[in-house]
Amino acid sequence: MKEINPIIKGLKGRVVISCQALKHEIMYGSQYMQKFAESATKGGACGIRANSVVDIKAIKEVTDLPILGIIKKDYENSECYITPSMAEVDALYNEAKPEIIAVDATDRIHPDGKNGAGFIKDIKAKYPDVLIMADVSTYEEGIEAEKAGADIVSTTLAGYTSYTTKTEGPDYELMKKLASALEVPVIGEGRIWTREEAVEAFKTGIYSLVVGTAITRPYDIAKRFCDYVAENVK
Amino acid sequence: MKEINPIIKGLKGRVVISCQALKHEIMYGSQYMQKFAESATKGGACGIRANSVVDIKAIKEVTDLPILGIIKKDYENSECYITPSMAEVDALYNEAKPEIIAVDATDRIHPDGKNGAGFIKDIKAKYPDVLIMADVSTYEEGIEAEKAGADIVSTTLAGYTSYTTKTEGPDYELMKKLASALEVPVIGEGRIWTREEAVEAFKTGIYSLVVGTAITRPYDIAKRFCDYVAENVK
Repeated sequence: MKEINPIIKGLKGRVVISCQALKHEIMYGSQYMQKFAESATKGGACGIRANSVVDIKAIKEVTDLPILGIIKKDYENSECYITPSMAEVDALYNEAKPEIIAVDATDRIHPDGKNGAGFIKDIKAKYPDVLIMADVSTYEEGIEAEKAGADIVSTTLAGYTSYTTKTEGPDYELMKKLASALEVPVIGEGRIWTREEAVEAFKTGIYSLVVGTAITRPYDIAKRFCDYVAENVK
Repeated sequence: MKEINPIIKGLKGRVVISCQALKHEIMYGSQYMQKFAESATKGGACGIRANSVVDIKAIKEVTDLPILGIIKKDYENSECYITPSMAEVDALYNEAKPEIIAVDATDRIHPDGKNGAGFIKDIKAKYPDVLIMADVSTYEEGIEAEKAGADIVSTTLAGYTSYTTKTEGPDYELMKKLASALEVPVIGEGRIWTREEAVEAFKTGIYSLVVGTAITRPYDIAKRFCDYVAENVK
């Protein structure tokens, strides 16, 4: 059994908080992400998931927690957008230097021409010491990601590929299947809105989990709250 | 029956979102409050509760929603701290110009030497056109606030005066008693964390409610989430 890296061990049974805002979002900007990351750190997170070199650099100024870094980028020749190609891995590895790099590990063809497993092998060949978190959407993709050398497998993309269905809440079923089958730690991510859902997710056997929107996207939090009141109060 | 002002009517059955950060908080600063208020507005809020002249001015740049303005200030000669004296009312009325001014309307002696009801009478005498939201902690204070001329009575301070007990969740009991007894609209405020609690609060007969921390204080949201996971996941 592969030994678990101490950085990954620090995530066990705890909550990684994702601090992201894309260009169209109200809170877009590294100065805001820095404040959210500081809030997450002081609030008890075990790690911060963050997008882009500038955000990660800004966040590193305010936290010692491990960063699970990604670069979201759209390509014309691929549906993959979470660290989809080697260009983003290069930027993360050489500039932002997050402790863990999360990548699209779905079976879809990546911008560089390979599927997720092939992409992971290429990354491990180029950067043997990198810790890779494989964002998958299915059980099979998780199996292949582990075989290809991923250090963590995450359910991040379940419901966000054309061939998977978006579950109403978190995809507990996928978490359970992956946690039972894999040797590497499985992280639950995606549609975890409440702390009760987080505890439910841990019962599937996952190693850690990532919560984002429910904590760090005030617009989405406000909308979910107000919509529910509008529907249930006349 | 006193006719309800159209500004107050706009709050009916909907959610006011409080956007506040004090000096010791990570998100302190009008630039952050502005972003939270924009998030709240686009998320469906019916009003914004905000603290201080600078915050209110910044928030007015990004929203057309009515502002429920306060100035938190500590005084040596009084336990009251939410718009406790005429000096804060003057600043709000003349500089920040929120649509509604919320004040401490507890029976405690205010810095100016009167209790909440006396303070409200003084404000109405000085500014007859002002809309006053009376933040109270007990049923009796709500009754006295209405008599004194308050346009709205809010449960904001229930559990935060030495003579009231902090209920675990929202103080539904006080909301119910005030909503049944008063002619002016009653707003539920204080310890509303979930949207389900918000709907429950509306069942007491309140007119509107204020939610703050659960939406606009990421540190508190993160802490509540992580603490719960720490307690329930081993």
